[in-house]
Amino acid sequence: MSEAPIGIFDSGVGGLTVLKQMLRHLPGEKMVYLGDTARLPYGIKSRETVVRYSLNNASFLLDKGVKCLVVACNTASALALDILETRFQVPVIGVILPGARKAAAATEKRKVGVIGTMATIRSRAYELAIRDRGPSIDVRSVPCPLFVSLAEEGWIEDEITYAIARRYLAPLRHEGIDVMVLGCTHYPLLKPVLSRVMGESVLLVDSAEEVAVQVKKALVETGLSASSSASEPVPPKIYLTDCSPHFLELSVAKALRLWPR
Amino acid sequence: MSEAPIGIFDSGVGGLTVLKQMLRHLPGEKMVYLGDTARLPYGIKSRETVVRYSLNNASFLLDKGVKCLVVACNTASALALDILETRFQVPVIGVILPGARKAAAATEKRKVGVIGTMATIRSRAYELAIRDRGPSIDVRSVPCPLFVSLAEEGWIEDEITYAIARRYLAPLRHEGIDVMVLGCTHYPLLKPVLSRVMGESVLLVDSAEEVAVQVKKALVETGLSASSSASEPVPPKIYLTDCSPHFLELSVAKALRLWPR
Repeated sequence: MSEAPIGIFDSGVGGLTVLKQMLRHLPGEKMVYLGDTARLPYGIKSRETVVRYSLNNASFLLDKGVKCLVVACNTASALALDILETRFQVPVIGVILPGARKAAAATEKRKVGVIGTMATIRSRAYELAIRDRGPSIDVRSVPCPLFVSLAEEGWIEDEITYAIARRYLAPLRHEGIDVMVLGCTHYPLLKPVLSRVMGESVLLVDSAEEVAVQVKKALVETGLSASSSASEPVPPKIYLTDCSPHFLELSVAKALRLWPR
Repeated sequence: MSEAPIGIFDSGVGGLTVLKQMLRHLPGEKMVYLGDTARLPYGIKSRETVVRYSLNNASFLLDKGVKCLVVACNTASALALDILETRFQVPVIGVILPGARKAAAATEKRKVGVIGTMATIRSRAYELAIRDRGPSIDVRSVPCPLFVSLAEEGWIEDEITYAIARRYLAPLRHEGIDVMVLGCTHYPLLKPVLSRVMGESVLLVDSAEEVAVQVKKALVETGLSASSSASEPVPPKIYLTDCSPHFLELSVAKALRLWPR
């Protein structure tokens, strides 16, 4: 048993989608979220820089006494997870493996598409993790750099976003995939447009829920779950490294839907 | 006379458009350019954070012994110029005043449009600087957050970029402006689309050339110009705080057109 909080970090506020699923699946656990809004986005930066930022974020959360570390950012999970695991003693859970596992289990055609930031796609992290679970699975990956800005601009069900999605996703449609991994925490916000472009027969895999399930499992296995007596849910603590009016609006909008649930 | 270099910084590589004009107008001057690619973009961040980053960048350049500081980033010029001026002893030149001066002088209808990042537009720096030069000038400002990503994606003469520009610029077209300030160093790359949307009668003001002229003037006034004997042009030194494959491609593409001229 441990009443220590769970630490979660992301490059910004996109990881709040992961926090939301964790609050749902792990009531009674305290949570501390760190969004590195002063240095985002990570997806266009180098491995060295993303690793350095991830170590900073992890140290901040460890100083808050967290018992477990959740890397809610796809880019940081793709580039820095191995280093975080060797550097820190607590369990470290990223978003790539849970998403890859779900995609590999769900594809019947053995054809999976992955969309993400430039850095995530370049890292081939999803591709390797999916092939590891199903060597016969064809994986086709496409970077979609404009999606984050479109989501932040709030152009969700929008003709322009639809036109951009059609262009980015054309190779995946031609490939005839039946599962598409949303390899960036912002992308679930664009689900309406992504479904419209890919068609209803294509399953969109969003790692957030899978991550929550895996964190729960890791806590049970390591004996680190909170005592069940602590059944009263505790509001999460949210830290941001920068708080511009822009992110304040975004965060508040998201947080309102996040807490109270 | 001073053979010390001129220091130029930007949040990324957009400021290379300013460097290019400076090389053209100030041959014989040594130049050191710093692009803060590890922390860009600045345009969505808070004043406090942009000021802190700008002070870091300026200190780096001062350590290189620069005789003059050019802030080639519109957001940093809008939010941090006054602090840089009080903190450092060398002349500090930003991109807002030269652009505002040119716009105020050029408008016949007394109606000027300004486009820029969220932070630049919120700061009202252009608006105040233009009104300062022509109190009767109507200034209408519009943030265009997607333009930087579109320019970096290379979607320059593109139907999608055209559709986005039409949406962003609609208020400026209705206003009947005759001058539009490109208040971000990335925007000159989108000139073909911007002209198409606004029409040929609207003058697009890009500060880069005006900045070079003003730097030349400041150096003459303070007696800091390089001796004219140093007529052999010297390649600029370019530093980046992060060098991802993404920026390497962008920088190389731009640098090739930049040097040799």
